[in-house]
Amino acid sequence: MKKGFMVVFDGSNGAGKTTVINEVEKYLSAKGLDVVLTREPGGTPIGEKIREVILDPSTPEMCDLTELMLFGAGRAQHLEQKIKPALAAGKIVISDRFDAATFSFQHYARGIALDTIVKINDLALDGFRPDINIILDLDPLAGLERVKKRGQALDRLEDEKLDFLTKARNGYLIQAKNHPEKFAIIDASQSKEQVLSDVLTVIDTLLAQQQ
Amino acid sequence: MKKGFMVVFDGSNGAGKTTVINEVEKYLSAKGLDVVLTREPGGTPIGEKIREVILDPSTPEMCDLTELMLFGAGRAQHLEQKIKPALAAGKIVISDRFDAATFSFQHYARGIALDTIVKINDLALDGFRPDINIILDLDPLAGLERVKKRGQALDRLEDEKLDFLTKARNGYLIQAKNHPEKFAIIDASQSKEQVLSDVLTVIDTLLAQQQ
Ligand SMILES: Nc1ncnc2c1ncn2[C@@H]1O[C@H](COP(=O)(O)OP(=O)(O)OP(=O)(O)O)[C@@H](O)[C@H]1O
Ligand SMILES: Nc1ncnc2c1ncn2[C@@H]1O[C@H](COP(=O)(O)OP(=O)(O)OP(=O)(O)O)[C@@H](O)[C@H]1O
Ligand SMILES: [Mg+2]
Ligand SMILES: [Mg+2]
Repeated sequence: MKKGFMVVFDGSNGAGKTTVINEVEKYLSAKGLDVVLTREPGGTPIGEKIREVILDPSTPEMCDLTELMLFGAGRAQHLEQKIKPALAAGKIVISDRFDAATFSFQHYARGIALDTIVKINDLALDGFRPDINIILDLDPLAGLERVKKRGQALDRLEDEKLDFLTKARNGYLIQAKNHPEKFAIIDASQSKEQVLSDVLTVIDTLLAQQQ
Repeated sequence: MKKGFMVVFDGSNGAGKTTVINEVEKYLSAKGLDVVLTREPGGTPIGEKIREVILDPSTPEMCDLTELMLFGAGRAQHLEQKIKPALAAGKIVISDRFDAATFSFQHYARGIALDTIVKINDLALDGFRPDINIILDLDPLAGLERVKKRGQALDRLEDEKLDFLTKARNGYLIQAKNHPEKFAIIDASQSKEQVLSDVLTVIDTLLAQQQ
């Protein structure tokens, strides 16, 4: 049977993840491939409940470690209940954010010790890693402008200072440098069409490798 | 300034924790002592939201590791936001369950590796430990009978097989044997009056040590 694989889209808020994921899904479905769309935090009924706790703007007092363990709890559930079964059935899993975001936001931006994050993430993933993280790289100010134009209220994590978001952005670039085989960086300041075209080049390479 | 201390009441469901905690609070308050009542899972607004996720009977598919990390997340928040500040202010913290319950239910009953639980619990507590765990020891069947008489529906964790609950009970006894300085076992099959009297003996000893 065909082996499934997992693609993560990640990057700054408003970089265009949702936009591009929808196009990629169309592209793959048109090829007759079985796609499972998911996201973090979230992805399962339990994970979505945890997402609400994490993003609730009414609890700014949340401790770093609490936030980190909530992400870990959701990720463990996500992997066991949704990702592993889909991959085992030969499907393509596309996730809107995954563990690279935890490293970017919690370590590179918030400054939680790498060691602590690695411990919790390793427990949650137990050796599993997505096949590729496609990072939509964008200046966070430009991302915030896009989100504001979209006209939604900001959640607890979006409502952070620009300096924080810049550190998170750089966190993705550092991770990509450290693990080039697991990351692709796309310039998300380009037009939607060009971003999609760059993304599909990465996806096509992955598909070719699965033959 | 007077140093605060922390007492945990724990044991089988329905063993009489809430009943005895209310009496102990009266006893200490009558002495003019400042008491903070709390509980796990829960204890803080964030912790109470996490409690809802943990105990929700509609999600029996929750993975062991997810449950464990949710307890860890709530505990980290509980310690930083509520317990440490209360102790620093010289108060007596009384908690309805704490980490001994995680070891009893998740390790001794559910069989999650001790090592995994220790990792998460150590992250959450960072070296902190309550001054004493007072275990109300009761045959779980008797505890269930008491809970049923009380007339409430069972939550996800109460709704476990008797064998599971018996293993959890034995888990408390094993922990008490391994850490006698941190545990007191009370025979909770006795009358409410006798249970309270045994508990107050332990409390009085603790109070004497704080002089
Ligand atoms: N390449 C692009 N150029 C200009 N605008 C874009 C581009 N890609 C997406 N947008 C617009 O920017 C806004 C944010 O895009 P989208 O919601 O896809 O980003 P996102 O990364 O999913 O955001 P979030 O982090 O909030 O989930 C949308 O209004 C979208 O139409
Ligand atoms: N020593 C006792 N003998 C008989 N009944 C008792 C005793 N202690 C408590 N009860 C009764 O048993 C029921 C359960 O007691 P309680 O609610 O205090 O237990 P609990 O340990 O807090 O339970 P839970 O685990 O559900 O929180 C109550 O109806 C209470 O009045
Ligand atoms: Mg989006
Ligand atoms: Mg109770």
